[in-house]
Amino acid sequence: MTILRSATDPRWAAAALAAFDRTLGDHAHCEKKAAASALKLVADHPDRPGLVRALAKLAQEETQHFLAVLVELQRRGVPLPPDPGDPYVRQLLALVRHGPDRLLDRLLVAALVEARSCERLAILGEALAEPGLRELYRRLAASEGGHERLFVQLAGEVAGEAVALRRLTELASAEARIVAALPLEPRIH
Amino acid sequence: MTILRSATDPRWAAAALAAFDRTLGDHAHCEKKAAASALKLVADHPDRPGLVRALAKLAQEETQHFLAVLVELQRRGVPLPPDPGDPYVRQLLALVRHGPDRLLDRLLVAALVEARSCERLAILGEALAEPGLRELYRRLAASEGGHERLFVQLAGEVAGEAVALRRLTELASAEARIVAALPLEPRIH
Repeated sequence: MTILRSATDPRWAAAALAAFDRTLGDHAHCEKKAAASALKLVADHPDRPGLVRALAKLAQEETQHFLAVLVELQRRGVPLPPDPGDPYVRQLLALVRHGPDRLLDRLLVAALVEARSCERLAILGEALAEPGLRELYRRLAASEGGHERLFVQLAGEVAGEAVALRRLTELASAEARIVAALPLEPRIH
Repeated sequence: MTILRSATDPRWAAAALAAFDRTLGDHAHCEKKAAASALKLVADHPDRPGLVRALAKLAQEETQHFLAVLVELQRRGVPLPPDPGDPYVRQLLALVRHGPDRLLDRLLVAALVEARSCERLAILGEALAEPGLRELYRRLAASEGGHERLFVQLAGEVAGEAVALRRLTELASAEARIVAALPLEPRIH
C-alpha cells in the first residue's frame, strides 16, 4: 500500500537500464542525501525523542545503502559521479511551508520521496537481469518502503493523524504532477 | 600513538562526570556531526574512490555511535538537548585554508578532532563507575582512534606524506593551544 497518487511511466525502466551506471551513480547520491537529511531533521528537532531515535536509525540504514551502492559502483569500475542534483526533490521541498507546519511538511515530503524511491527500486528489482543486482534492489526497495511508513507515522505524531493525512493528500497530488512533468532519465527520480 | 601535542587537563574528567547527562548530550551531537561531516566530505570529493568508501563507512560507524549514545540518554530519561555548538571545532575549522590545500586541512582537522575525542572517551572509560558505561566508552574510544589513523592516512594520500605531516605538526600545535584556552566543561571538547 503506497501513498503515491501515480504509478511511474513504464518507459522509465528502459531509460534507467539503458545507462545503468548513471542510474547507479545518481542512486548513490540519493542514499547519501537521505542519510544527511535525516541527520538534519534530528539536529533541528532534538526535543522529540521518538523522532530522534527513529531518524538516527534511518540515517544509519541509509549510510548502509550508500555503502552497498558504492560497492556495486566499484565492482563495475565506475567512480562516483559528481552529484547531478535532484530537480524532483528540489520541487517537492519548495512546497514545504515555513512556520509551525514546517516539520509536518518536511516529514511528508520525506515520506513521498521514500515512497517514490521504493516504487522505482522495486521496478529495478524486477527489470534488472543480474540476480545479485535484482536481490540488492529488492532489499533496498523493502527498506525504503519501511521508511515511507515511518515518515507517515512521525507526521501523524507531530500534527495528529487527520491533519497529517489531509496534507499528505495535497502533497501526494503535487508529487504526481512533479513526476509526470520530469523527463525519463537514468536516475532514480 | 596519538597525534595530539598535549594531554587533557586532568581536571576535565571531574567536570565531565559532575554533570554527566550534559556531557552525554554534547557527545551525542558530536557523533551526529561527525557523521554529517563525513558525508559532506564525500559530497565534495566524489572523484576520490578511496576517500568516498572509507568515509561512507566512517559515517555509518558514527551514526551507530550516535544511536548508542541516544540509547544511553533514553535509559537515563534525558532528552537530547539542543546542540550547544562546539567552539573547539569551530576554532579548528577556522584554520582550514581555502584553495588547493583545503581538502588536506579538512582531513587533518578531522584527524585531530577524532584524536582528542578518542583521548577523552578513553578517559571517561576509566573514570566512569558503571561497568556498562565504561565498556561503551572504551569501545567508542577505540573506534575514534581508528578514525584518527584513517584521516591521517587519507591526508597522506591526498598531499603526500611529507607535506601532510608538516601541516599536521602545525595544526596539532594549534589544537593544543585551542584546547588549553577552553574552559573545563561537561562536554567532550
